[in-house]
Amino acid sequence: PEGDVPLISPAQNGLAAENFIHQSMAIIMEDAVKKATDVREKVCEWRSPEQLKELLDLELRDGGESESKILQRCRDAIRYSVKTTHPHFFNQLYAGMEPYSLVASFIVEALKPSLYTYEVAPVFTLMEDAVLRKMIEMIGWEEGGDGIFNAGGSMSNMYAVNLARYHHFPDIKEAGLSAVPRLVMFTSQECHYSISKAAALMGIGTKNVYMVPSDNRGKMIPSALELLIKTAKSEGAVPFMVNATAGTTVLGAFDPIQEIADICEKYNLWLHVDACWGGAALMSNKHQHLLKGIHRANSVAWNPHKMLMACLQCSAFLVRDKTNLLQRCHSSSASYLFQQDKFYDVSYDTGDKSVQCSRKPDAFKFWLMWKALGTGELEERVDRALATARYLAEEIKRREGFRLVMEPEYANVCFWYSPPSLRNLPDGPELWKKLHTVAPVVKERMMKKGSMMVGYQPHRDKANFFRMIVISPQASRLDMDFVLDEIHNLGKDL
Amino acid sequence: PEGDVPLISPAQNGLAAENFIHQSMAIIMEDAVKKATDVREKVCEWRSPEQLKELLDLELRDGGESESKILQRCRDAIRYSVKTTHPHFFNQLYAGMEPYSLVASFIVEALKPSLYTYEVAPVFTLMEDAVLRKMIEMIGWEEGGDGIFNAGGSMSNMYAVNLARYHHFPDIKEAGLSAVPRLVMFTSQECHYSISKAAALMGIGTKNVYMVPSDNRGKMIPSALELLIKTAKSEGAVPFMVNATAGTTVLGAFDPIQEIADICEKYNLWLHVDACWGGAALMSNKHQHLLKGIHRANSVAWNPHKMLMACLQCSAFLVRDKTNLLQRCHSSSASYLFQQDKFYDVSYDTGDKSVQCSRKPDAFKFWLMWKALGTGELEERVDRALATARYLAEEIKRREGFRLVMEPEYANVCFWYSPPSLRNLPDGPELWKKLHTVAPVVKERMMKKGSMMVGYQPHRDKANFFRMIVISPQASRLDMDFVLDEIHNLGKDL
Repeated sequence: PEGDVPLISPAQNGLAAENFIHQSMAIIMEDAVKKATDVREKVCEWRSPEQLKELLDLELRDGGESESKILQRCRDAIRYSVKTTHPHFFNQLYAGMEPYSLVASFIVEALKPSLYTYEVAPVFTLMEDAVLRKMIEMIGWEEGGDGIFNAGGSMSNMYAVNLARYHHFPDIKEAGLSAVPRLVMFTSQECHYSISKAAALMGIGTKNVYMVPSDNRGKMIPSALELLIKTAKSEGAVPFMVNATAGTTVLGAFDPIQEIADICEKYNLWLHVDACWGGAALMSNKHQHLLKGIHRANSVAWNPHKMLMACLQCSAFLVRDKTNLLQRCHSSSASYLFQQDKFYDVSYDTGDKSVQCSRKPDAFKFWLMWKALGTGELEERVDRALATARYLAEEIKRREGFRLVMEPEYANVCFWYSPPSLRNLPDGPELWKKLHTVAPVVKERMMKKGSMMVGYQPHRDKANFFRMIVISPQASRLDMDFVLDEIHNLGKDL
Repeated sequence: PEGDVPLISPAQNGLAAENFIHQSMAIIMEDAVKKATDVREKVCEWRSPEQLKELLDLELRDGGESESKILQRCRDAIRYSVKTTHPHFFNQLYAGMEPYSLVASFIVEALKPSLYTYEVAPVFTLMEDAVLRKMIEMIGWEEGGDGIFNAGGSMSNMYAVNLARYHHFPDIKEAGLSAVPRLVMFTSQECHYSISKAAALMGIGTKNVYMVPSDNRGKMIPSALELLIKTAKSEGAVPFMVNATAGTTVLGAFDPIQEIADICEKYNLWLHVDACWGGAALMSNKHQHLLKGIHRANSVAWNPHKMLMACLQCSAFLVRDKTNLLQRCHSSSASYLFQQDKFYDVSYDTGDKSVQCSRKPDAFKFWLMWKALGTGELEERVDRALATARYLAEEIKRREGFRLVMEPEYANVCFWYSPPSLRNLPDGPELWKKLHTVAPVVKERMMKKGSMMVGYQPHRDKANFFRMIVISPQASRLDMDFVLDEIHNLGKDL
């Protein structure tokens, strides 16, 4: 390859490449868009790991394969994947196919941009800024703020912990934690696990995440928070932040932000609101009361890839600060990227606000769909999803054998299903022990049948229950009825 | 929306969505694939932030826009974006259009999978495993290992620091750093800035990253490393890891892994190799000597999205461990995701190895192109890129006004360009002061003309120089000649 000939012309055949991409687009359109979202098709074509390994022929070899073989591999990858855009996928905090966001994703993949500097990503740098400013407006930070899109809500929560720590103890960035007293943060026992993961990674330690008890609706109890803050202080530890959750993962509960903000002000603690899931309610005049007081937060995590259906991943971290805290906290000023002798205003270079280096322009996926739908239709979608969840809850109350875990206030509908054989058992440990085994079997059966996907989990002292997540504008009342009918069909003999 | 009618049928029009996606695919094909990679087209259509803001009409409003308007917005986003897949884009450590990987990306975007559990991402879970095992084999860990794909190399380096720390001090995960002596890690002064960012985020502190001097080729000096380890110990600090860089960001230098591994063994330090950029040389029989000794590392970061051209992002973190260290270090065992009463072998659920929650199946983008090309063609691409870089270096030596910063050993070709007005100045501070101003002006002119993109930076005591990154099989000798001709054309009057 060092001879003259091989280097004289491109090694890649551009026309062949274009032809391959063109053919694959037809497959993607047919199998990954149309069939995947067709309610008459399966949500998944279940195979065990052992079976699937054989079917996929995973081994990577010295020789390449023909294009027709690769196209078949594309079809197979789609075929055996879970269709998370299917109207009967209710398993995670995201669902549905959002065409505008999807197209934006395709553009991003084709252009391969990375958001270090304005120079390499001019369009997406400005779009990120526009989306962040609009989200800041909806949070209600009248004096503005700052922010960045991250590779997921866990990263955003981590950023919050780092900013809170840096705000209180800027020296830690250079000197580390070994010379500092024990730092303590507070969150509810219902919070997302990323808060503990952040504490572990950041050297704070999971034991220094004090778990505040929640009430029977899953909301943090403010008086319990204050008590724990006092406890930490009496131990000689240094409280520095509180994480309030707006839309908990399992129950969909909203912590009382106003009361928590009062306590944070009293004790001078950074208030972060993990609104990854619940932030979408800010779009709705009817439901934004769930996040009342969020304008008092110092930082917010909000994932448009959940309820608002932007393609994965689309996660914003927002901070109420005008002093460039985000950049000061994370910067390392690498001279090969962030040259100061550029010919444009380098304040547009946002890369040093991030702990990542390459960073995808996820904001574009939200910007394009927002442009297409307008705030108005985004609001309607949120209202519709919560109305559909409400319908499901009422159906559960009406139907024999079904029982709500609690009244939903958001799009998580949690419930038990009792097969007829258990319906006459008296309430007690034996019933719950038996009920605990029902959901896993129903789940296995729905997976193998491919008819739908609904999650289940045990939760604290509660036996396994189903958690339905209602998001997609593709899902209607008929689909809610279907889910309940199908659970009964799959589990009635247990 | 809570009346009966709006919930009875889906709110989204599936056919209209499909039609929109279909139309947009034609635009993506034409503008973001064909035109973007056409050497006769511009690399970028430069606009200042102020101009671009007006052109793009960024504001998000209450009302939505028509589909034809949105399609025009797609065209505009592509038009004003940098074409990183253009044959004359040499600005970052990635470039080029890889059709197989691109198609895999499209499939991922359409299917919206997330890699928590086998159940929600069966195909991609197995493919990630297959790719990791093959990469582990190429590193030379004969007894196997473990790994995970991350959202970028910075994350992978952070994982390495966390695993090294957990390996030595498992209690830190729970108890935090405040009760632990000062921990110190070592890396060369040429390393990527993510090492310092990791230390800052993880509470170790940037001052506790001891920067080991490099030689005049940019390689860590092993004796200097040993001296610094002794210094740290004498200060009462606790050394715990060394980061060796295989392919530094600016110079493309490879640290001497064998000698560093000897020192790590002697002092019982975790050895991490940041091979994000240089790992591709493992594919080449001819060039793998650059990473000699990598099989002795405890962990490796390797980004197939760089030299190997997988779509952004595709970043592997690999660890030589068979005790489930990765999961033990990062797990939080969230019961809503990682139920233990599932109907399949839950050891396939990899989500708890990650500090992310949602995680994209980036390995698929590498798997599909590897299947299509085979190891053989991947090897040829690496050999070809390095041969092309070598050709460029020889041309630089031959041409008047050009001067190599150093002989390249990889695909980074660093050089100064002197316009004729500076060629007769004597070597000294005045010459270098003037030379320092040349690259920024040439860069401005190439951006505004849109003819190519080549980076520049100052580096330590060295004045601004150009850094060419040679990757793409689309780039030939003719393109190397073009770059040098064009720099001369743009800068000869300076």
